[in-house]
Amino acid sequence: MPKNVKMILASGETCSDIRYAAGFSTPDDFFYYEAGENRGVICSALEYNRACAQAKAGVAVRAESELGGPDRVEILRNLAAELHTDGFCVPQDFPLGMAEKLRAAGISVVPFDGTFFPEREFKKEDEIQQVILSQRAGEAGCRRAFEILRETEISKDRMLYWKGEPLTSELLRSEIDIAMVRLGMLPTGTICAGGLQGAQPHNTGSGHLPADMPIVMDIFPRSASSGYWGDLTRTVVRGRASDIVKRAYETVLTARENCKAAVRAGADPAKIHNIAVAVMEKNHFYSGHGEKGDFGFFHGLGHGVGLDIHEAPRLSPRNSKPLKGGEIVTVEPGLYYPEWGGIRLEDLVVVTENSCRCLTELEDFLEI
Amino acid sequence: MPKNVKMILASGETCSDIRYAAGFSTPDDFFYYEAGENRGVICSALEYNRACAQAKAGVAVRAESELGGPDRVEILRNLAAELHTDGFCVPQDFPLGMAEKLRAAGISVVPFDGTFFPEREFKKEDEIQQVILSQRAGEAGCRRAFEILRETEISKDRMLYWKGEPLTSELLRSEIDIAMVRLGMLPTGTICAGGLQGAQPHNTGSGHLPADMPIVMDIFPRSASSGYWGDLTRTVVRGRASDIVKRAYETVLTARENCKAAVRAGADPAKIHNIAVAVMEKNHFYSGHGEKGDFGFFHGLGHGVGLDIHEAPRLSPRNSKPLKGGEIVTVEPGLYYPEWGGIRLEDLVVVTENSCRCLTELEDFLEI
Repeated sequence: MPKNVKMILASGETCSDIRYAAGFSTPDDFFYYEAGENRGVICSALEYNRACAQAKAGVAVRAESELGGPDRVEILRNLAAELHTDGFCVPQDFPLGMAEKLRAAGISVVPFDGTFFPEREFKKEDEIQQVILSQRAGEAGCRRAFEILRETEISKDRMLYWKGEPLTSELLRSEIDIAMVRLGMLPTGTICAGGLQGAQPHNTGSGHLPADMPIVMDIFPRSASSGYWGDLTRTVVRGRASDIVKRAYETVLTARENCKAAVRAGADPAKIHNIAVAVMEKNHFYSGHGEKGDFGFFHGLGHGVGLDIHEAPRLSPRNSKPLKGGEIVTVEPGLYYPEWGGIRLEDLVVVTENSCRCLTELEDFLEI
Repeated sequence: MPKNVKMILASGETCSDIRYAAGFSTPDDFFYYEAGENRGVICSALEYNRACAQAKAGVAVRAESELGGPDRVEILRNLAAELHTDGFCVPQDFPLGMAEKLRAAGISVVPFDGTFFPEREFKKEDEIQQVILSQRAGEAGCRRAFEILRETEISKDRMLYWKGEPLTSELLRSEIDIAMVRLGMLPTGTICAGGLQGAQPHNTGSGHLPADMPIVMDIFPRSASSGYWGDLTRTVVRGRASDIVKRAYETVLTARENCKAAVRAGADPAKIHNIAVAVMEKNHFYSGHGEKGDFGFFHGLGHGVGLDIHEAPRLSPRNSKPLKGGEIVTVEPGLYYPEWGGIRLEDLVVVTENSCRCLTELEDFLEI
């Protein structure tokens, strides 16, 4: 009955499921297994002491050598015999090559149909506290950016200078990241996209930053110790925003607040997403595909955040599975136009019974 | 003939093969395919512009919608038809769940037996330059640590204080990381393990750092832009090292230099590893397993470094495949004893025809 014995082979750094189940992370692959209450990890000698110190209560820590390792097929053959199973149920992303080796050795391998640990979607209070710590660090990074932008001088050709040097996306990013590293975070690709670069939601930004145009700052630190992420976005203009940018900003802010007001247990994520679309269309901001690519609002409203930066549930037109309560999700409408750039405003909330609790404590403003 | 059509489905952040082949990285999964000279990527709308701007020469950039997406099975069915293949050859770690969905749809999926892009092992000059940039950043981080340790005061109970505050592993790590972030790096788990914590090679270190005992600093920055890693380790003592620590330090340093002198095209990695073992045994440092875990020298001498921090080839007693030239490998002997901690000294070298070229430009000393 392999369906009853869960098994993961992965590193804690690339697989949040194993980090969640085992309670610790490693740079290299290790095994996790779960047969009812019988849960354990199988580690190399290098990771054994770390595992003993950090494994979750109830998770046995075993050395590869104890199960005939380091050969992985041999380890799993011995584990299967010990657990009286003919095979294992594994995550969807279990490595195909290893699955075929196990099958060739007579061990059945069944990819689990669905989320491996569905309980990950619903955060316990200690997980919420870990996300809040990461979120505060992200806010500290963003406040550092506000401070730097306030200190900039604007040249005659409307470009930004800080301490006499051109202020680039790269420099602003490194200052944001440094503020977060001081708080124990791993910076992981902070977006500082100014001017027209901001029209591409995933453009991380490069080069000299302009005045009078939006600068999108999407900041998602991960705690080096807990592995939980924070996620926030603010968009500001140093100097004077154009009328269209002001209108887009107000529209996105209204969309975000209206969507947050609709988040609660029982709510339909697709409907929440469509609240943002309706606010935008009411304000004459339309979406579509043009010569220069997509424009308007062309990504999902939000996503779950936890040990993964993108996890279930999605707030998107394609997800109509009602929220249950306990999920941590971003609410991040955005408007993007190749003519003037982008505006994205992102808060992080926990779904509660009758509303949501906002985990972001950062001011909103456009001009700086 | 699926063996002739390579396909990867992964994100650039978690899969270096796709980053190598496509020339760019993304937070989300995308497709790469290669049928002889016909190479391309298939991206979501969100990544399309980035892909166009950054894809390697000769790699076509296509939108999911062009191939009937976003359904992944549909995309691959259309791609297979276009390429006149009945299926794909995929990496060993291709996700099992997706493989089974494709097979159910009549598309064959064959995990490739061996390294997907064996040429990744042999670095081109531009790759070496990228690794050097990361290595210099790691050295800047390590020099910052040296500077801080020199500035520390030692209390009566032989603990370290910096600017009036206890100097902790966490604080030293964040200062190292900050120096690297300023140089465009992603810090990724810098080890600062002092005293007995250093006896565990993968212990990242925590708490107040002691004087007179070794502090192992293993620093492996990854360039945020190129994705190439650097890797270096130094071990120092602030204050006075004990005699055993001094002897261990000299032994590890001699082992590292003798091993480096043996690195060249044609050399057997296992034999290079055993040079370190011989130096240690000659100096009466023995290895084994005791009540408190492993002691002595119980990890491989080194590993390849490139777009992955641990990649082929390994310098280990289990690898006797001769080096060919062009590999970038670490040479990092270490000695670890629960009684006094650890010493590890790690340089990074490129294998050349008759010797190796050391990429590390950082001084060696024990007491500081």
